[in-house]
Amino acid sequence: MQQSVIKYFLDLNCIPNSNVMNRRKFLKGSALLSGILTLNPWDLFAGQHNVQTKKREAKNIIFMISDGMSSGTLAMADLYSRNILGHGGNWMNLYRENKISRALMDTASASSIVTDSAAASSSFGGGFRVKNGVLNIGSNGEHYLPVWQKFMKAGKKTGCVTTVTITHATPAGFCINSESRNAEPEIAEMYANIGFDVMMGGGDEFFNPLKRQDKKDVYDLYKKKGYEVLKTKSDLKNVKKDTKILGVFNTGALPYSIDRQNTPALQTIPTLAEMTSSAISQMKDHKEGFVLQVEGGKVDWAAHANDVAALLHDQIAFEEALKVVMDFAEKDGNTLVIVTTDHGNANPGTIYGPEATEKFNSIAEYKYTNEFILNSIHADFNIQQVKDWIYETNTIRLTDDEARYMLNFYSGLEKQEAGLYNYKKLPFKAYSEIQKKHNSVGWISMDHSGDYVELAMFGPGSELLQPFVKNTDLHYLMLKAASVE
Amino acid sequence: MQQSVIKYFLDLNCIPNSNVMNRRKFLKGSALLSGILTLNPWDLFAGQHNVQTKKREAKNIIFMISDGMSSGTLAMADLYSRNILGHGGNWMNLYRENKISRALMDTASASSIVTDSAAASSSFGGGFRVKNGVLNIGSNGEHYLPVWQKFMKAGKKTGCVTTVTITHATPAGFCINSESRNAEPEIAEMYANIGFDVMMGGGDEFFNPLKRQDKKDVYDLYKKKGYEVLKTKSDLKNVKKDTKILGVFNTGALPYSIDRQNTPALQTIPTLAEMTSSAISQMKDHKEGFVLQVEGGKVDWAAHANDVAALLHDQIAFEEALKVVMDFAEKDGNTLVIVTTDHGNANPGTIYGPEATEKFNSIAEYKYTNEFILNSIHADFNIQQVKDWIYETNTIRLTDDEARYMLNFYSGLEKQEAGLYNYKKLPFKAYSEIQKKHNSVGWISMDHSGDYVELAMFGPGSELLQPFVKNTDLHYLMLKAASVE
Ligand SMILES: [Zn+2]
Ligand SMILES: [Zn+2]
Repeated sequence: MQQSVIKYFLDLNCIPNSNVMNRRKFLKGSALLSGILTLNPWDLFAGQHNVQTKKREAKNIIFMISDGMSSGTLAMADLYSRNILGHGGNWMNLYRENKISRALMDTASASSIVTDSAAASSSFGGGFRVKNGVLNIGSNGEHYLPVWQKFMKAGKKTGCVTTVTITHATPAGFCINSESRNAEPEIAEMYANIGFDVMMGGGDEFFNPLKRQDKKDVYDLYKKKGYEVLKTKSDLKNVKKDTKILGVFNTGALPYSIDRQNTPALQTIPTLAEMTSSAISQMKDHKEGFVLQVEGGKVDWAAHANDVAALLHDQIAFEEALKVVMDFAEKDGNTLVIVTTDHGNANPGTIYGPEATEKFNSIAEYKYTNEFILNSIHADFNIQQVKDWIYETNTIRLTDDEARYMLNFYSGLEKQEAGLYNYKKLPFKAYSEIQKKHNSVGWISMDHSGDYVELAMFGPGSELLQPFVKNTDLHYLMLKAASVE
Repeated sequence: MQQSVIKYFLDLNCIPNSNVMNRRKFLKGSALLSGILTLNPWDLFAGQHNVQTKKREAKNIIFMISDGMSSGTLAMADLYSRNILGHGGNWMNLYRENKISRALMDTASASSIVTDSAAASSSFGGGFRVKNGVLNIGSNGEHYLPVWQKFMKAGKKTGCVTTVTITHATPAGFCINSESRNAEPEIAEMYANIGFDVMMGGGDEFFNPLKRQDKKDVYDLYKKKGYEVLKTKSDLKNVKKDTKILGVFNTGALPYSIDRQNTPALQTIPTLAEMTSSAISQMKDHKEGFVLQVEGGKVDWAAHANDVAALLHDQIAFEEALKVVMDFAEKDGNTLVIVTTDHGNANPGTIYGPEATEKFNSIAEYKYTNEFILNSIHADFNIQQVKDWIYETNTIRLTDDEARYMLNFYSGLEKQEAGLYNYKKLPFKAYSEIQKKHNSVGWISMDHSGDYVELAMFGPGSELLQPFVKNTDLHYLMLKAASVE
C-alpha cells in the first residue's frame, strides 16, 4: 500500500518515478507512513534541471554551541525573555516562526554516558567519539583530522569565536589534535601554524610572553604569519578587511554578560554577538565560502556555578549572536546554520510552588554573577555587611543565620567548595541553595548531564537532519552539506 | 524570490497554482525560507481528487501522557533500554525510524509558570488555561466543555486508561468540570452519568460503598447504566465486546512496574499496555471512531519520590503501551497518536564523574521501588538489618553512618519527610541522596518543573503540528484533525 501511495503521488507530480526513487534523500526514512512527506524543492528540480542542484550546497557553515545548555536553560531563557524583556527568546522564536529543522542529540563520549567539552567538540570536529579530556585522538593514538582543517583544505576560510579562552576545548575540538585539552599554551601556537583565519575570545595568558611559563611571545608568532592582533572592542571595529585576525580580549575567559552590563570597565571587551558579526564580515566575501564556530562558553560555567542570573544572561547573549547569524544566513541563502549544545549541565528548571512565577521573575533584580558577589565578601565582613551586600546585588534579604552561614565559608568554619571553574573556592553551592528559596530554580548537580539535547538547523543541508542523531553525525552532515571530502 | 521559487515548484509539479495556493496548509509557516518544503500528499491529491481528502481526517485519536516526564526521563529510559535491555526505547525508536513529527510544548497554567496535572490536563482537555488544582473551570466560573465530551457528541467512543486512580487529574481533565481535582468521589459518579465508554485504572475507594464516606455503591451506578465492571486482569481478558467498561484494579493507584515485576501477588493487576490494548479492542470497530487517553501516571509519582528505578521502569512500561498504540495506528491508518507529557518533574539526569556509565547501569540491580524498600524498614531494625535490606534490594552497601541516618527517620530523631504522594512520610529524599552517590542520577527538587517538554505526533492531523506549541493548542489540533466542532 505504501508503495502505491508513493507511486500515485509521484505520477501526480509528473516526476519520472525512477529518476526520483533513486534519490535517497527524496523520502526521509518512512515519513510517508505518518502521512507526511518532507520534500526539498531542489530535489525535484535536480531530476530535470541539473544546474539548480548547486543551490543545495552549503557554501558557508556557522556552527553555534551554547556550551552546557540543558533543555531547561533554553526554556528558562525564553521564559525570562518573555516575562522580563517582553519578547520571546531568539532561539525559540525561530521555532515560533517555523524556520528551523529540529532534532534531539545523544552527546555521549567514548569513555562515558556524560561527556566533557573536549570529547564533545571532538565528536563534532573529528567525527569520532574520544575519551573525555582528549581532542581528536583515538585510544590507539589515531589522529582524526579536525573538520575546520578539512574545510581549510577545501579552500574555505575558517574561524572560531568564544566567550572563554580561544584555546579552550570547544574551539580546539574543531581545529587541532591534542592528548589533553589542558595544553592551552601549545594549542595557541598550533592555531597560528595551521593558519585559521579568525580566532577570537579570551586567554591572554596563553599568548602573552609575560604570562607564559616559557616566556614565548605567541602574539609575535601570529604577527609574523600576517595576523592582525586585536585586544579591545575598538581594535575589532577598526579591523582591516581580508587579513587574518587573532582577537584576545581578556586574561582567562571573557566576563559574564550580566557583569559586563553592570560594570562599565568591562565594556571595552566585545560581546559574543559583536565578535560573531565581525567574524562574518571578515570572511563572508571569500569566494570559496567560510566556516565559523560560535561558542557561548560561559553558559557552561554558569551552570557549573549553579548561578541562574549568569546562566540566563549568557544564554540570552548567545541568542543575540544567533540573531546576528540568522540575519546573515537568511539574506545569504547559502549558509547552513547549526545551533545546539555539546551537553547538558546541571539540568536547571523552575520548581512548582506558591509564587513560582514571581520568584522566577525576581531574577531580573540580580545585578551581578554569584562569582562577583561572593568574591566581594571577605572574612572580616560582619553579618550586617553580608546582608546589605546581598540585598544590594540580589534584592534578597538573608536571615542572620544565612548570613552567618555564608560568612563561615570565608572564616574557614565551613569547608571551602571546589568544583570546575571555581578558581577562588567560592561557596557557590551554599549560596545557590539560599537563592533557590527566592527564585524557585533548582539544579541536579554542579556538573554536566547526559540528557539528549536540543539541536536546530537552518539553510542548505538542514534537510539532511534526522530527528535523533549522535553528536558524531554532525561531522559528516557538515561535510555532506558542503560537498567536501 | 520566494514567490517565484514557489511558483516554479508548483509548475514543475503540474498542480494548478491557484488551486493549491488557496490551501492554507500547503505551506507550513515560512518553511520554504529554510529550503525545505513540507508537503502532505493528501493536500496534493485534494486539488484533483476530492474523494481522497477524507483520508486526512483522524477517525481515532489516542492521546498518551507520561505524566511528569522531564526530558531527562525520556533520555534515561532510552539509555537504560540500550544499556540494559539491548534495544532503544520505544519512544526514541520512533525518532530513529523517522516516523514522527516533533515539537516542544510550553506547559504553563493560568496561575503559574509551573502547572499541576489538573490545570495541565484542562489545557489539553478544555482548550483554556485554568488555575492549578482546577478542572476545566475558568476564574469567573466559565465551564469549558471537556474534549472527550465534544467527541462523544460527534458520535465517537471515548475512554481513558491510567496507572493512577481513574478519577485522577489527568483523565478527569479530558472528561469533566470540577472546581477541585480532589473531588474524586464525585468525579467517579460524573463519569457514569456522562457515559464514557472505557475507563480503567485504580481508585476502588471512590467506587466501593465500603470505602466511600457516603457509602454509595458507585459500581452499582455503573452496572445500572449497562457497564461491565472489571476488577482483575482475567476480568479484562474475558470482557464482552461492545459493552461499556469500568475497570478498577486496585485501591489507590496501580502498583509501580518494578514492584509488579518482582511481586507475583501484584501480577493480577493489568499493565498499562494491557489496559491500552483492551481499550483499543473494545472501541476500534465503532463506525464513528474513538478517542482514548493513555496516562503513565506513576512516572510523575516516581519523580516526586526521586526514585530512579521506579521512574525508569514506569517510563518503559508507558513506552510498552506506546508500542501497542503504534502497532494499531500504523495498521489502522486513520488514527492520530499524540505522545507527550503534561509537565516536567524534578528534571532528573545523569551526572558527569568517574564511572558515570557503570553507576547508571547499576540501577538494573534495583529490585523494588524506594516506596517498598523504605516502607519495609521499621524503627526496631538494627544497623545491620538496614544494611542487609538495602543490599538485598538495591545492591548498595550503606556505611554504618548512612544506615544509622536512615534509621533516625523511623525513630523520630530525623524529621519525617512530607511531599506529594508520600502518604507514609518515608525518607525518600534522604535515601535518594544516598542512592545518587551510587547511580550518578540527580534531581532538582521533588516537584514539577516548568521546562518546555517533548511532544510527538503520528498519523492524520500530525501535519498540523508546529515546532513550538502551547498545551492549549493541542485541544484545537485534535478537533481540527478529526473535523469535529
Ligand atoms: Zn563544562
Ligand atoms: Zn505531579
